[in-house]
Amino acid sequence: MANEKLKFTCDYMEGAHPLIMKELLSTNMMQTSGYGLDEFSESARDKIRKACGAPEAGVYFLVGGTQTNATVIDALLRSYQGVLCADTGHIAVHEAGAIEFGGHKVLPLPNTDGKINAAQISAYMDTFLSDESHEHMVMPGMVYISQPTEYGTLYSRKELTALNEACRRYHLPLYVDGARLAYALASPDNDVTLKDLARLCDVFYIGGTKCGAFFGEAVVIPDPALIPHLFTIIKQHGALFAKGRILGIQFDALFTDDLYLHIGKSALDCAAAIKSALKENGYRFFLETPTNQIFVILENEALHRLEKHAEFSFWENYDDSHTVIRIATSWATTKEHTDALIELLKENRA
Amino acid sequence: MANEKLKFTCDYMEGAHPLIMKELLSTNMMQTSGYGLDEFSESARDKIRKACGAPEAGVYFLVGGTQTNATVIDALLRSYQGVLCADTGHIAVHEAGAIEFGGHKVLPLPNTDGKINAAQISAYMDTFLSDESHEHMVMPGMVYISQPTEYGTLYSRKELTALNEACRRYHLPLYVDGARLAYALASPDNDVTLKDLARLCDVFYIGGTKCGAFFGEAVVIPDPALIPHLFTIIKQHGALFAKGRILGIQFDALFTDDLYLHIGKSALDCAAAIKSALKENGYRFFLETPTNQIFVILENEALHRLEKHAEFSFWENYDDSHTVIRIATSWATTKEHTDALIELLKENRA
Amino acid sequence: MANEKLKFTCDYMEGAHPLIMKELLSTNMMQTSGYGLDEFSESARDKIRKACGAPEAGVYFLVGGTQTNATVIDALLRSYQGVLCADTGHIAVHEAGAIEFGGHKVLPLPNTDGKINAAQISAYMDTFLSDESHEHMVMPGMVYISQPTEYGTLYSRKELTALNEACRRYHLPLYVDGARLAYALASPDNDVTLKDLARLCDVFYIGGTKCGAFFGEAVVIPDPALIPHLFTIIKQHGALFAKGRILGIQFDALFTDDLYLHIGKSALDCAAAIKSALKENGYRFFLETPTNQIFVILENEALHRLEKHAEFSFWENYDDSHTVIRIATSWATTKEHTDALIELLKENRA
Amino acid sequence: MANEKLKFTCDYMEGAHPLIMKELLSTNMMQTSGYGLDEFSESARDKIRKACGAPEAGVYFLVGGTQTNATVIDALLRSYQGVLCADTGHIAVHEAGAIEFGGHKVLPLPNTDGKINAAQISAYMDTFLSDESHEHMVMPGMVYISQPTEYGTLYSRKELTALNEACRRYHLPLYVDGARLAYALASPDNDVTLKDLARLCDVFYIGGTKCGAFFGEAVVIPDPALIPHLFTIIKQHGALFAKGRILGIQFDALFTDDLYLHIGKSALDCAAAIKSALKENGYRFFLETPTNQIFVILENEALHRLEKHAEFSFWENYDDSHTVIRIATSWATTKEHTDALIELLKENRA
Repeated sequence: MANEKLKFTCDYMEGAHPLIMKELLSTNMMQTSGYGLDEFSESARDKIRKACGAPEAGVYFLVGGTQTNATVIDALLRSYQGVLCADTGHIAVHEAGAIEFGGHKVLPLPNTDGKINAAQISAYMDTFLSDESHEHMVMPGMVYISQPTEYGTLYSRKELTALNEACRRYHLPLYVDGARLAYALASPDNDVTLKDLARLCDVFYIGGTKCGAFFGEAVVIPDPALIPHLFTIIKQHGALFAKGRILGIQFDALFTDDLYLHIGKSALDCAAAIKSALKENGYRFFLETPTNQIFVILENEALHRLEKHAEFSFWENYDDSHTVIRIATSWATTKEHTDALIELLKENRA
Repeated sequence: MANEKLKFTCDYMEGAHPLIMKELLSTNMMQTSGYGLDEFSESARDKIRKACGAPEAGVYFLVGGTQTNATVIDALLRSYQGVLCADTGHIAVHEAGAIEFGGHKVLPLPNTDGKINAAQISAYMDTFLSDESHEHMVMPGMVYISQPTEYGTLYSRKELTALNEACRRYHLPLYVDGARLAYALASPDNDVTLKDLARLCDVFYIGGTKCGAFFGEAVVIPDPALIPHLFTIIKQHGALFAKGRILGIQFDALFTDDLYLHIGKSALDCAAAIKSALKENGYRFFLETPTNQIFVILENEALHRLEKHAEFSFWENYDDSHTVIRIATSWATTKEHTDALIELLKENRA
Repeated sequence: MANEKLKFTCDYMEGAHPLIMKELLSTNMMQTSGYGLDEFSESARDKIRKACGAPEAGVYFLVGGTQTNATVIDALLRSYQGVLCADTGHIAVHEAGAIEFGGHKVLPLPNTDGKINAAQISAYMDTFLSDESHEHMVMPGMVYISQPTEYGTLYSRKELTALNEACRRYHLPLYVDGARLAYALASPDNDVTLKDLARLCDVFYIGGTKCGAFFGEAVVIPDPALIPHLFTIIKQHGALFAKGRILGIQFDALFTDDLYLHIGKSALDCAAAIKSALKENGYRFFLETPTNQIFVILENEALHRLEKHAEFSFWENYDDSHTVIRIATSWATTKEHTDALIELLKENRA
Repeated sequence: MANEKLKFTCDYMEGAHPLIMKELLSTNMMQTSGYGLDEFSESARDKIRKACGAPEAGVYFLVGGTQTNATVIDALLRSYQGVLCADTGHIAVHEAGAIEFGGHKVLPLPNTDGKINAAQISAYMDTFLSDESHEHMVMPGMVYISQPTEYGTLYSRKELTALNEACRRYHLPLYVDGARLAYALASPDNDVTLKDLARLCDVFYIGGTKCGAFFGEAVVIPDPALIPHLFTIIKQHGALFAKGRILGIQFDALFTDDLYLHIGKSALDCAAAIKSALKENGYRFFLETPTNQIFVILENEALHRLEKHAEFSFWENYDDSHTVIRIATSWATTKEHTDALIELLKENRA
């Protein structure tokens, strides 16, 4: 350990939560049907429906975030429609054009700390509809947000309600990317529950890959009639997992005894400790976040010193002499590593 | 005429230049092969090659601008690449997602009077290439500009040369949308010739629809090896015109006796007269343009008065009490109509 | 003429019917709105609605057949659906993958003389729906036929009614490609009227390019609610014609005094004369057709002799020593040329 | 167990081989980089390169078969090209149009026991290239086969060599879908090694999901220069697995001590025993296969009796009174279950 660097690069460096591994192991030689038609998947779907207060919801398990976004967005849009989102949205920047690959334009709106708001949706739609040549333009067909956002910020229930109302007014389905949803649910600053999501969104996904699962994301469609033939659409996108039970087992474990609701807690505790240390030692935040991602502006020299002992995620060049880095904790971050990082941050500042 | 409105809405309100109509009529009952394999198309291709100083150029005739852009861009890009352009570019705004329909992301850069510059290309590419996660992002695969731009402005030879150099440095083909190219070529402020285009761009198209043809655009590829199997790509895009000779006859006429080089002249004369009148009468320009499109900021009341007698193109709301309109002249604009418009502008201002 | 070959290659070798040219010429300098919003297009739409007995029909003018097929099929299908058609269908073979470019699979059924029948549709759908893994397969979403077919054959009203019933049963819109529809309407063997098409199909197009127009196809959607936002879909496909009135003027002329219903008559008269001559002189038909395309099996040597004086369309190699050729007449075929061809066929056989 | 049915439905009913589970478990809390940049993936790549005798090969780990096929085929084809394959090929039938979703036509050739041969490729290409209108058609851009095929049959080294030669002649990359490759490699009738595949194909994938892995497929590109930017293409297809090391660990285990070469052995032993029993008891084979899939024609009554005690895969209706079923063994099939099935087959026949 002495010569190994501390790693706070991202929230998917480890495998799976031990309870998940245990279930995967104990069920390993059982024989089940493929494609999510097994009993584990059925059980996981039931538990998720209950947790979301959406007894009729369609629940589908996919493998990863980009795949899920591309599949859901293709399923929600008509061929000539585009998707409104923050200009920092994952689909706008970091999915290598997966949405455009499906034929759809990403329509970016200026973000505020990674978020967009209801007024922006309304303004965009009003301008669009009043434009004489709007039939020559891409018709917005849905809204994409993420909770937490790519910047680790949160939509409040009030903000989400306003977005829901704006979306309804313009007949735009609202889709929430919950790749890191566990870190929202565990945040003391959060007031949006799974039930709120099921009530206020048309589709959302519960992220597994970054939240303690080996891998996998659970798509929830409170009113499944919204997307007919999603099974086939998933298959068409190469997103149908043959041994579906592997996904089912994981989400069954995550939704047993509310594990998913708590799994982000230790990550937030570690993040809180790191944030305090940063503040106490005079570090400068790029923005304040209530979840497991911390964005800090460092002098490049300080960064080089830190990087001898720890790994972070490069975020962006702030100016010629400063860099924005991201420190990410996760369900697997240990107190030991957190303390070591805090020590390092203290020393380095001195 | 007394009760008819003056129309300065756009540059495609009439049919074709009389010389073109004459040729279409005189050849009407001749029998030729389809798909551009006829003698008229061959003659037109030769004349265009000569006018461009590009004896080896591939020349293809398509029907309209959006179709041409979508076809050429699909042909130039690999499946995972996107196209850099001004955020005001026709492909970015007014083609209903035709580029995304082909699977490609439009990568908009902030425009200055409708233009982008070499430094922007370099900066974008440097940032992209130095981004650790650029393999997760859409790879820029070409640059799209228009000459004149959507705002009627012109790239100078120097600017185009700089763009060419930046594009070469990053292995980005440079494509020029010349929907209104005749109005650039006829502008006293223009120093970019067809030969410059053939030398400095990888592909460009010579616009017919807005420049005196019935319809049609001529794609020029100075080094045709750049795009193998373009014929099939055109067919795949539904852009292969069965009676290709109708396009060939038009471009043959446009490139006989340098008609294309002069056809925009009267439009520019009319535009100059209108611009003078606007200045003299204290109108406010949205931006200054050296071609056939004039952008004026009008008080909404003044606009309503004018609209009783003339039609313009709505451009955008400037503020609550002002509107930007576009006045467009064309090869077909008459001195009579121009004088009448000037009179109207005078009266209205008084 | 002495040294020029007779041309019976296809039905789009000439320009336009003189009445169309006259209208295009006389309206040339009029100023109209673009994109089909002009009065000529409106008049043409009205006349077509009347001719089809479909007063509410949506009517859209596009430029060519492949473009029309790709646009309509994309508009009718959901992203995960495919289109059933004859394996000889134009979309299956000769559109360079334009349907797949839009993301849709072409699902070919074995043809009989270029046609498919209701029983095939039912059998395909029953097999599909009873296949346990049909959700892993492309879901058929519509049926494409052409009238006349690529082999010049005709669907009877009875056959079309049966297709309509099968399509209704399986919720498959029925689309008819009428690229050569005028030659069906003028055929003595035809009993399917425009009104039948409007009654029995969900979408069909009235072909102009091969039927006397300069170019253009008129898409008719008896119940326009079937395809919302088709204008935008057309634009997205690069199929929106800027000077829409050019298409409108042509179809207005074609639907004045029932021109379209009669324009194929002379082509069929010429074809009948040629067929008689072929029979009398012992030529062998590849199949019998009631329209303007004639398919003949020739010994290769006989073909070479004929080709010195006349041009046909190569169809396929019949066997090592025989070739199938297509002789096509058109609205523009003259009696003089027809007689010369008949003479040639006689001489050559002797 | 007494009342549980025997399951011979498919080869992906269980989890993973115990050695794989052990490795996944023992490495679970290690921290590694994402996206396949970890040391396990690197080790697996090295071992695969060695096993294939392809020291320069690009090796990429993806999640499932349809995803892999769609990604590789999109990467190999230009936008206007299609893929030749057997009409029974997985991409032609059972991938819900994933290839068409990427814009490419699947060009099916008639299969013989699931296979196509070099002469068919040559004949198709010769006919295509000699067709006057081939530029209006989809250009074949590659060949897809599977080893073993969807019918469990095998290409011999001689057949693969001939395919390789035909492909080279027409510049068609040859791609092999190895979803069940372990069952080919373990077959006594097989003479195609991994080294042969690396020598004779342009791309192939080593199937994990059906061959003892939890999930995952390893794409091998002997000459990686063939596909630039595949990482981005994988991301664009939603096929980039975040915790890449989970795939790396599995393939590292599969290529340790030649596990992959032996893992199919017990499946083939069980299949051989079942085949013998079938023969001895007078069952009728749909076709003879040298791998782990057995296709039997059963009277429907016999099938219903058997189905009370065992599950198979429905394959197709043979005629009104007979059905073709598939019996599949796998790496996880036990001798106990095999003996029980044999007993059942005996009893039932009697």
